[in-house]
Amino acid sequence: MLHRNVFLLLLLVVAATLRSRADDGYRLWLKYDRIADAAPRQQYQRAAQFIANPGTTPVLRAAAGELQRGLSGLLGQVVPVVAAAGSRTGGIVLRVDAKASANGQPLKPEGYHIFSEKQNLVITGRTDAAVLYGAFALLRQVQMRKALVGLNLTSNPRINFRLINHWDNQNGTVERGYAGSSIWQWYEMPERLDPRYTDYARANASIGINGVVINNVNASARYLTAEYIGKVAALAGVMRPYGIRVYMSVFWAAPKVLGGLPTADPLDPAVKQWWTAKSDEIYKAIPDFGGFLVKANSEGEPGPQDYNRNHADGANMLAQALGRHEGVVMWRAFVYKANSNGDRFKEAFEEFQPLDGKFDPKVLVQVKNGPIDFQAREPFHPLFGAMPKTPLVLEVQLTQEYLGFATHLVYLGPLIKECLEADTYAKGAGSTVAKVVDGTVDQHTLSAIAGVANIGSDRNWTGHPMGQANWYAFGRLAWDHTLSSKTIAEEWTNMTLTTQPAAERTIVDLMEKSRNIYVRYTTPLGLHHIMGESIHYGPQPWLAKAGRPDWTAIYYHKGDSLGLGFNRTATGSNALALYKPEVQKQWGNPQTCPLDYLLWFHHVGWKQPLSTGRTLWNELCTRYYTGADSVLWMQKQWAQVQPQVDPAIYTDVAARLQTQRKEALWWRDACVLYFQTLSRQPIPAPLVPPTRTLAEVKSLVTIYQLK
Amino acid sequence: MLHRNVFLLLLLVVAATLRSRADDGYRLWLKYDRIADAAPRQQYQRAAQFIANPGTTPVLRAAAGELQRGLSGLLGQVVPVVAAAGSRTGGIVLRVDAKASANGQPLKPEGYHIFSEKQNLVITGRTDAAVLYGAFALLRQVQMRKALVGLNLTSNPRINFRLINHWDNQNGTVERGYAGSSIWQWYEMPERLDPRYTDYARANASIGINGVVINNVNASARYLTAEYIGKVAALAGVMRPYGIRVYMSVFWAAPKVLGGLPTADPLDPAVKQWWTAKSDEIYKAIPDFGGFLVKANSEGEPGPQDYNRNHADGANMLAQALGRHEGVVMWRAFVYKANSNGDRFKEAFEEFQPLDGKFDPKVLVQVKNGPIDFQAREPFHPLFGAMPKTPLVLEVQLTQEYLGFATHLVYLGPLIKECLEADTYAKGAGSTVAKVVDGTVDQHTLSAIAGVANIGSDRNWTGHPMGQANWYAFGRLAWDHTLSSKTIAEEWTNMTLTTQPAAERTIVDLMEKSRNIYVRYTTPLGLHHIMGESIHYGPQPWLAKAGRPDWTAIYYHKGDSLGLGFNRTATGSNALALYKPEVQKQWGNPQTCPLDYLLWFHHVGWKQPLSTGRTLWNELCTRYYTGADSVLWMQKQWAQVQPQVDPAIYTDVAARLQTQRKEALWWRDACVLYFQTLSRQPIPAPLVPPTRTLAEVKSLVTIYQLK
Repeated sequence: MLHRNVFLLLLLVVAATLRSRADDGYRLWLKYDRIADAAPRQQYQRAAQFIANPGTTPVLRAAAGELQRGLSGLLGQVVPVVAAAGSRTGGIVLRVDAKASANGQPLKPEGYHIFSEKQNLVITGRTDAAVLYGAFALLRQVQMRKALVGLNLTSNPRINFRLINHWDNQNGTVERGYAGSSIWQWYEMPERLDPRYTDYARANASIGINGVVINNVNASARYLTAEYIGKVAALAGVMRPYGIRVYMSVFWAAPKVLGGLPTADPLDPAVKQWWTAKSDEIYKAIPDFGGFLVKANSEGEPGPQDYNRNHADGANMLAQALGRHEGVVMWRAFVYKANSNGDRFKEAFEEFQPLDGKFDPKVLVQVKNGPIDFQAREPFHPLFGAMPKTPLVLEVQLTQEYLGFATHLVYLGPLIKECLEADTYAKGAGSTVAKVVDGTVDQHTLSAIAGVANIGSDRNWTGHPMGQANWYAFGRLAWDHTLSSKTIAEEWTNMTLTTQPAAERTIVDLMEKSRNIYVRYTTPLGLHHIMGESIHYGPQPWLAKAGRPDWTAIYYHKGDSLGLGFNRTATGSNALALYKPEVQKQWGNPQTCPLDYLLWFHHVGWKQPLSTGRTLWNELCTRYYTGADSVLWMQKQWAQVQPQVDPAIYTDVAARLQTQRKEALWWRDACVLYFQTLSRQPIPAPLVPPTRTLAEVKSLVTIYQLK
Repeated sequence: MLHRNVFLLLLLVVAATLRSRADDGYRLWLKYDRIADAAPRQQYQRAAQFIANPGTTPVLRAAAGELQRGLSGLLGQVVPVVAAAGSRTGGIVLRVDAKASANGQPLKPEGYHIFSEKQNLVITGRTDAAVLYGAFALLRQVQMRKALVGLNLTSNPRINFRLINHWDNQNGTVERGYAGSSIWQWYEMPERLDPRYTDYARANASIGINGVVINNVNASARYLTAEYIGKVAALAGVMRPYGIRVYMSVFWAAPKVLGGLPTADPLDPAVKQWWTAKSDEIYKAIPDFGGFLVKANSEGEPGPQDYNRNHADGANMLAQALGRHEGVVMWRAFVYKANSNGDRFKEAFEEFQPLDGKFDPKVLVQVKNGPIDFQAREPFHPLFGAMPKTPLVLEVQLTQEYLGFATHLVYLGPLIKECLEADTYAKGAGSTVAKVVDGTVDQHTLSAIAGVANIGSDRNWTGHPMGQANWYAFGRLAWDHTLSSKTIAEEWTNMTLTTQPAAERTIVDLMEKSRNIYVRYTTPLGLHHIMGESIHYGPQPWLAKAGRPDWTAIYYHKGDSLGLGFNRTATGSNALALYKPEVQKQWGNPQTCPLDYLLWFHHVGWKQPLSTGRTLWNELCTRYYTGADSVLWMQKQWAQVQPQVDPAIYTDVAARLQTQRKEALWWRDACVLYFQTLSRQPIPAPLVPPTRTLAEVKSLVTIYQLK
């Protein structure tokens, strides 16, 4: 009877404890909740009775620790870690083997192989990190309820450096961050290391990220001081067991600001010496330091051009300063002149393409996915395929600067894939951006990809719960760009929201369509850069004056009484000529140019019929309207999965979808009403004209720009 | 056997669940963890078998809900809520009674009385809010393990408006915030209301806070737009069930920026009309809106002086605009002229004291605790007691702008109490600041107190776990300023960290001494405003040039070859004359002036012997050294309580104390080395001179000011 009471009490406590732990999203896709169904759980229990880890290195301990944590949670019983399997079977064995291969092929240093051996599952690879990645892969199998019996799984990363770029400032703010403040608590370091850093490292390692640029490319010199190097070193110590190196963005004028030198000229011996000494100082504190990321002579940042040197002069000097150490220099190509008279589309190309072949072997040039700036849809950057002698880093933005901040549900898998799969024709058909970036087109040994973080101090990391999927998708694509956006969405959904098949399908479908829906209600048919000034929130297609002409909207949409769009063909800015002939051919003819890119390259008459059978004006209106209405569809789809999703997450997303619907209408109304002043055409039936006036919408936009 | 297995499994799950829930500090002092000892738990169980709530209003539901949540957690069993006790005994009865009194005295509208009746405990008061406060008081009894049997507890608030002031900006940053970004997610509102807002309201209600100014006094006009009024109204809906009204800080020039008027002159009829219409618009959305807080003609903010009107003209116009509604205007007295040639100490007094009697009855003037700006120790502001016809709001700062940010452990109870208990002698001895503020000295019916929030989006709200105590202490003192700082520290410690008596004593002792320790290693003997420029972090006593002379350090410490300190007697700025003669007498003589205020009022020779027997220089050095060494003592004390405190909290505080020790030495070395250049005296034995040079310390300070 006593036992029975205690039993009931325990039941109560368990119930209360479980009830009180609504999912706050902190655990991301590493939830490890107990598998509810007994049958599959017992199968996994039989296959994972122990973890044998003969290694004692921090990385192997992290791998074994994560397996133990994950499996114990998923299986509802503690899975012991032992040093060796001995004669035991039914367990998981970690094994580092410098000669490991799979299917007759040698593994890459970070590649893993999971296979059955003597009724155990072996996770092997040539390095500790490889085993760590294999451990996460095995956990993913269980999280997705896939069988372990007979598992034979091999995976190698296609890109060497898989980096998160933080645009985090030293004062705790995050440039273009919409998920709270920076997760880095600089004032507390090095003495206090927030446990969150470890969870951040775990999340990154689980998707194959192996480098983190800790600070904003608009960089403070602060990070290069001894004080901050000590702090960064402490952070590096947290990242190291998870196979992650830290990198820094550097302020070009640091030798002046910190070193007291009169110049930051890259060819000045004292400057070179300062950077060499600084690199040595950093490597003394952080032996596996990753290297430098540099934004120079861009948007007001200092750089080598201040001394009549070029980007290669600057990058090479830094590379030589790193000289004896292992690190690399990633030099950003996101530049455009202070007074751009031509077409900003062409500027990075014009500055960088002629420098191909002039960079030090330790330099990579970092190029945004498109030529302007992380718009909802851009054609691939023309530098891809145009600098065969230089390894190019693909930079994508995970934080939704131009994609609805943390209020709009936009899964970026399709956006990133669209760029990766775009064919540059650099070495004939099939020379995709992905293959340029992974080095296979031009046989580079260095390769890298960077995602600008969408995370912050918000409990759930990304503000929008579904924003986590963008972090996840980036990591997975950085590891293997051949994965489909849909596969990745399925993985993430299974691990994060539900394993119930119908709900999974509904959510994945919603995710997969979300980016095109966003494009339709904000910038259909190739419109771009018509968002709110400076804050980049909401629509402002009427913006005609700004600090620079290429910060206005009219610079980009070129709307007038005749039509809409930027003529970038030979009769216009001729930016199209930066692409290979095959691409030019595809996009150069307004009749064959995909509608998604139409207004990127052509000024099209309002009454011009398009391939859809509608005139430009009617198609434009139709897309704005159907786009905005698609958010209603998104809401309905989401409502369907309510029974399968944690209530806290469900409610959160449902509320954000309400905001998204409201703001989709805002975009729709702002854009059709404004463009109507140019087209002087009626909103085509059966679409119902907005009930508010353009003036009303304009004043709404103004609110979000009030200081 | 089956039962036994299930039982063991449950045990495991319970253990795992408990283990995995390290205390992240989110629950503040409302932890409600199950009482471990069976005997007291069973006693409480007998006294709290049900909660009878006959009321259906949101506030009563919140009260009953909180009691249920709290008691169910503490007692480890669900306590049911019923509509009426009927004949049941051993429960808790909520009762609103418009005529409620206690001990023959009528209760104030928010005052509560808890007493035994027919073997039930009755929580009564004249209003729903009173019962809510009583509910939290009852929970506090249990949290502190005090007996419920025979409980007879009455408490009335001494101040009407008990406000948190948020310096939160519309872009999500928090001015002088060190705990992440703003908790307000404006982009998501009104559709999404973060569950955190409810927990914020619960925490405030639990300590008697009844008003929240949601935005920074350096205000954006944004909050006055229809868009944002809708968002604020949604937030007000979350606060309302917890007895909390929302207030706004307003931007003086809003009629120009938003209304398109050519002026913001308070005497202009169109301006008046604009504010009247705006108030009506706000009250339509938020019927219980609290009112406006205004920072005008201060530090660059616009105000009525731009039109040659005075502060009363401005405040009265706003009060009349509120006219038909219930709200009030709180007008800040924190002003100092753009070119202050005299003594900033005197400026607010000189501008405001002459306006006494000229303010509308709905206006309160909000005065910081001291005359400069939230220094670690200030004499009370001379306006207290000098404006008998005007209700004065006491403004204290909970965010540690000048007290070590979120890295230093400084319990502010003693600081706030020091101000509250300071005697203004306005109506003879005993006319304390507390009695001026609560209205008893001058028979005001309006009374208010404001604390500038130290909270942000950090999981534990305040960054430093012990910073929570400052939020708590402010609320408790706002409710009842006669409570001792120590009593409040005991309450908070019991509710938040431990109920074990020896550990409680150790922690409370540490807290009680912490503020004086901070003063000793940063600004002993009445030094003030010698912190790092603009960022206010670290020491910078050598600061001689800044945007304004009164933003330097030398303006305040007046150090020279002869001595140190600001002569504010009749032979100096004569700021002392702003106080009543009794105060002047106390502080005017350097022989009798308390050493804590010495350099606030006197320029003292370096070799001048003080009451301690040491010269000024030797005393100064002694205090810097003993202050810095006291942090070692704090570390030792904290180490002692490790077994009694949650491991996550323990580790967090221990690490921050390490940083505090490092920075105490930084302050010590910076100050003694710099002042030594003036005193030209040796560091007195047995103190050991700093091993670093002044130049080294200066460069360390510079790091934290790098852009």
